[in-house]
Amino acid sequence: MQSEIMSTSNAIKEGDLVLMWFEDEKTYLVKIGKGKKHPIHCGRPIPHEDIIGKEFGSYISGTSLKGFYLKPSTEDLMFKASRESGVVYSKDAALLAVKLGIHSGKRVLEIGTGSGALTLFLAHQVAPSGKICTYDLRTDLPVNAVRNIDRSDLASVVEFNTRQKGDPFPENAFDAVTLDIPTPWEEVELVKKALKGGGRLCSLNPTINQVERMAETLRDHGFINVEALELLERKILARAGKSRPEMRMIGHTEYMLFATKVGEIPPQPPVEVPEVVAPVDPVSVN
Amino acid sequence: MQSEIMSTSNAIKEGDLVLMWFEDEKTYLVKIGKGKKHPIHCGRPIPHEDIIGKEFGSYISGTSLKGFYLKPSTEDLMFKASRESGVVYSKDAALLAVKLGIHSGKRVLEIGTGSGALTLFLAHQVAPSGKICTYDLRTDLPVNAVRNIDRSDLASVVEFNTRQKGDPFPENAFDAVTLDIPTPWEEVELVKKALKGGGRLCSLNPTINQVERMAETLRDHGFINVEALELLERKILARAGKSRPEMRMIGHTEYMLFATKVGEIPPQPPVEVPEVVAPVDPVSVN
Amino acid sequence: MQSEIMSTSNAIKEGDLVLMWFEDEKTYLVKIGKGKKHPIHCGRPIPHEDIIGKEFGSYISGTSLKGFYLKPSTEDLMFKASRESGVVYSKDAALLAVKLGIHSGKRVLEIGTGSGALTLFLAHQVAPSGKICTYDLRTDLPVNAVRNIDRSDLASVVEFNTRQKGDPFPENAFDAVTLDIPTPWEEVELVKKALKGGGRLCSLNPTINQVERMAETLRDHGFINVEALELLERKILARAGKSRPEMRMIGHTEYMLFATKVGEIPPQPPVEVPEVVAPVDPVSVN
Amino acid sequence: MQSEIMSTSNAIKEGDLVLMWFEDEKTYLVKIGKGKKHPIHCGRPIPHEDIIGKEFGSYISGTSLKGFYLKPSTEDLMFKASRESGVVYSKDAALLAVKLGIHSGKRVLEIGTGSGALTLFLAHQVAPSGKICTYDLRTDLPVNAVRNIDRSDLASVVEFNTRQKGDPFPENAFDAVTLDIPTPWEEVELVKKALKGGGRLCSLNPTINQVERMAETLRDHGFINVEALELLERKILARAGKSRPEMRMIGHTEYMLFATKVGEIPPQPPVEVPEVVAPVDPVSVN
Repeated sequence: MQSEIMSTSNAIKEGDLVLMWFEDEKTYLVKIGKGKKHPIHCGRPIPHEDIIGKEFGSYISGTSLKGFYLKPSTEDLMFKASRESGVVYSKDAALLAVKLGIHSGKRVLEIGTGSGALTLFLAHQVAPSGKICTYDLRTDLPVNAVRNIDRSDLASVVEFNTRQKGDPFPENAFDAVTLDIPTPWEEVELVKKALKGGGRLCSLNPTINQVERMAETLRDHGFINVEALELLERKILARAGKSRPEMRMIGHTEYMLFATKVGEIPPQPPVEVPEVVAPVDPVSVN
Repeated sequence: MQSEIMSTSNAIKEGDLVLMWFEDEKTYLVKIGKGKKHPIHCGRPIPHEDIIGKEFGSYISGTSLKGFYLKPSTEDLMFKASRESGVVYSKDAALLAVKLGIHSGKRVLEIGTGSGALTLFLAHQVAPSGKICTYDLRTDLPVNAVRNIDRSDLASVVEFNTRQKGDPFPENAFDAVTLDIPTPWEEVELVKKALKGGGRLCSLNPTINQVERMAETLRDHGFINVEALELLERKILARAGKSRPEMRMIGHTEYMLFATKVGEIPPQPPVEVPEVVAPVDPVSVN
Repeated sequence: MQSEIMSTSNAIKEGDLVLMWFEDEKTYLVKIGKGKKHPIHCGRPIPHEDIIGKEFGSYISGTSLKGFYLKPSTEDLMFKASRESGVVYSKDAALLAVKLGIHSGKRVLEIGTGSGALTLFLAHQVAPSGKICTYDLRTDLPVNAVRNIDRSDLASVVEFNTRQKGDPFPENAFDAVTLDIPTPWEEVELVKKALKGGGRLCSLNPTINQVERMAETLRDHGFINVEALELLERKILARAGKSRPEMRMIGHTEYMLFATKVGEIPPQPPVEVPEVVAPVDPVSVN
Repeated sequence: MQSEIMSTSNAIKEGDLVLMWFEDEKTYLVKIGKGKKHPIHCGRPIPHEDIIGKEFGSYISGTSLKGFYLKPSTEDLMFKASRESGVVYSKDAALLAVKLGIHSGKRVLEIGTGSGALTLFLAHQVAPSGKICTYDLRTDLPVNAVRNIDRSDLASVVEFNTRQKGDPFPENAFDAVTLDIPTPWEEVELVKKALKGGGRLCSLNPTINQVERMAETLRDHGFINVEALELLERKILARAGKSRPEMRMIGHTEYMLFATKVGEIPPQPPVEVPEVVAPVDPVSVN
């Protein structure tokens, strides 16, 4: 069978986000616009006119270090967005999305905008037709977050809100909720209302005490599948004849706590003696 | 500021995928269709007519165990798809997507369809407008994969192909490539042609020897950012006053190896003595 | 230079502990005595007379599986002792000893005899001239522990005691203390008295809550160097061309909490303005 | 029952090793001798005469930082010895000893003296009656190692040797062998001769390639129980209400590879049809 996929243009054009990558691992994230120039550490500033029309992946000429014009990955964008406030690691954000079922078209409530790194990630996940409603207590932080969203042309996907503790959220409106705040248990009641039935949440917290308290609060509010985990990322040096893990690693980022909202359990009718039910083969079941 | 998000219908309708979840952690993944019934291990078979119109998250009545109708997460779908062939873990699939920048609209080449669990994940990531072109040597395996894609209404996003070693791929056509095959280094030449400039790949392999050989082959072919890592997922029991990690864990799934395709480095002109370039503040550079 | 070390007899004699090891990884720990026989799973019972005089390491003849007579390691002895009560893992016991400075001649207080696996390990560490004083609430458990100590000819090194909560320990008598009980913080006052000045302790507990409470209690009682850690042991399959970590591992055993007893800080005299002290080179200081 | 353990003197005397510990975690390891003084970073040099007669654990007076006179643990001594050459981590050394059965009275061959940190640890393990025979290619390194052994009054336990590759070791002379050299497989033949029957070895190496090659060589030479592992130590911040793992950790030190020497397998006699052997209960067998 012949694939029907065909080559498409890969040329850089105005408005594209470009990651200039150099061999010393320094990178610059640039939004291409006519009349602009970008300073670099290994040569003269580069006029954007010189970049427009180049292929993604092509060599950056005229510098003292080897470099290439790359398309930023979602992780690159998150990393660049993380300079302020707490970092959300890509490994944690990524698993959160697959466990909450966050993909194109979904509606997500984010409590704690912070640096906007997670906002940016979530916006990429739900674009083009989904929505991220993000809330923060602080009014100064989202400036950076807004700028990052705008640069990625995701403004139509994200709604930025400020909010005081206790302010309500839209109800039965969200497929998923993420919490990245110090006292998530204070929001459980409102979060439960905000989630659609069967909706899922993830709370990110650095201490086990926060996770424990949040887990108990979620159980008390009837959430199911209340499960915590942590992800450890270990870099490996893969080199001919001398491969090994790196000597230093990040030992801890955040614990991730998951839960699912379900409906009320109706009052049980008086129990009749049940007739025996033939067991279903468990292998075929799960 | 008032959010503009409003509540939407959350009722189960014909054609929906529903995850029936019971308190003993047994689950059934069901595609709702009139006239169908689903056997369960804790009660009489449930006619789909009884499910249609119920809210997601609502209680399953008439069974001997507590249960709820849930919307399957991407992870649930992958888990159900993984019964045959090798498993791809959600933690690995998720990080792969964020590091390769796979989201709505992207075109991805998947080498090694296997159980189709990764195919399913990738299809969710690129829907509705992207494309997954998946290839496998075997012609029998994709049956399961195709069925899973169809059930998730993602058929228009996935192109299934069979292929012998050495058969070419479409060229300069893909934003990203995933490899989940025993000898990925044999495909590097063709993969390099298939990727767009600046495109990224991830190879999943269980042994360090495979990773080492693939890493060296990628470096030999001019790929940059050749980096390997592993993710360890550790479950935590979060319970009031007695929280601890679980006693047993999965100690290893797959190593992940990443790399980026770049263009040729042009022949260098005779070096002029460079004028001194003022260093850019490395903090602002990042 | 010529080493002065010479070969010595390695023959099995009456009273020796022998580990019969078979290729299916089944092992038997046997104390050699004339007139005894040992049943095995892969052949006729073996009379000890046949074993006496054999070299350690030699082949066990007449069985349907390959086997050898080995000298049990400390870990083998601990593993055989661990059948009842909680297990203490060799990795944890071993690190505990090096961090508490437990070696030949030291006197150690063990609170919580349990299965006696740690007792056995500690006895090996301090023999021949040191002493382990072990205490347990239960009077039935140490039966197994006593038997294991006797078999290893370490009876003169270990003193078994039963004790109720609150009963005092000998004072200023121990170089080190180990605690393997559910509520170690209740013993801190008595443990502090039992330790010599500068003495160190280690508390083993499975939950972070226990560790947290014990750490705070130790700090409140003036202990210094209050530090917690966990050890993860990961088995590696090292095989030509296909090496990787094992798929399953033990995800958690016990947290280890360390602390050092120091003396009182004398009341401070009125502070004089200090003269400037020349800083010592921190590199040489360490 | 009343323990027979009694308090003993804990006073510092001439010849003792003392660890001066200050609250900024700076420490000094000092061998107490009349007429000596020790410079410190937080006060005037301390004459040893002032230290003699003080209790271990007592307060260091007259300094600008809080400090105490401690007895160094085995780990402290190893850490102080590790300044040159490669480090051996206490977690790895400790597990090695328990798995090789190295305790008082044992005879150990150490190939690769290095900084002498492992030598020091092993000497503590086998004292007073055992022996460490340590070998190194280099003649300059052991200077530090010898000094550390002397300071710990373990000179009678350790025999330092220099040796060229291929020089033989004493035969059938050692209970255990440790290897901490880049190409351990080149020594397997001689190590096998040096070990007593049933003796065990441990090779420490940072790369998986070394471990793989050593494991294969050991199997080729008839060793059994060829097993590799790694230990990860994770520090935990245990603090009231905000406990979590530390953000940074050591991600890799060394792989540990273990093996046991056994005797020759005799030529098998012609197989008779075996009579059926009643299986022994596997639970009791282990």
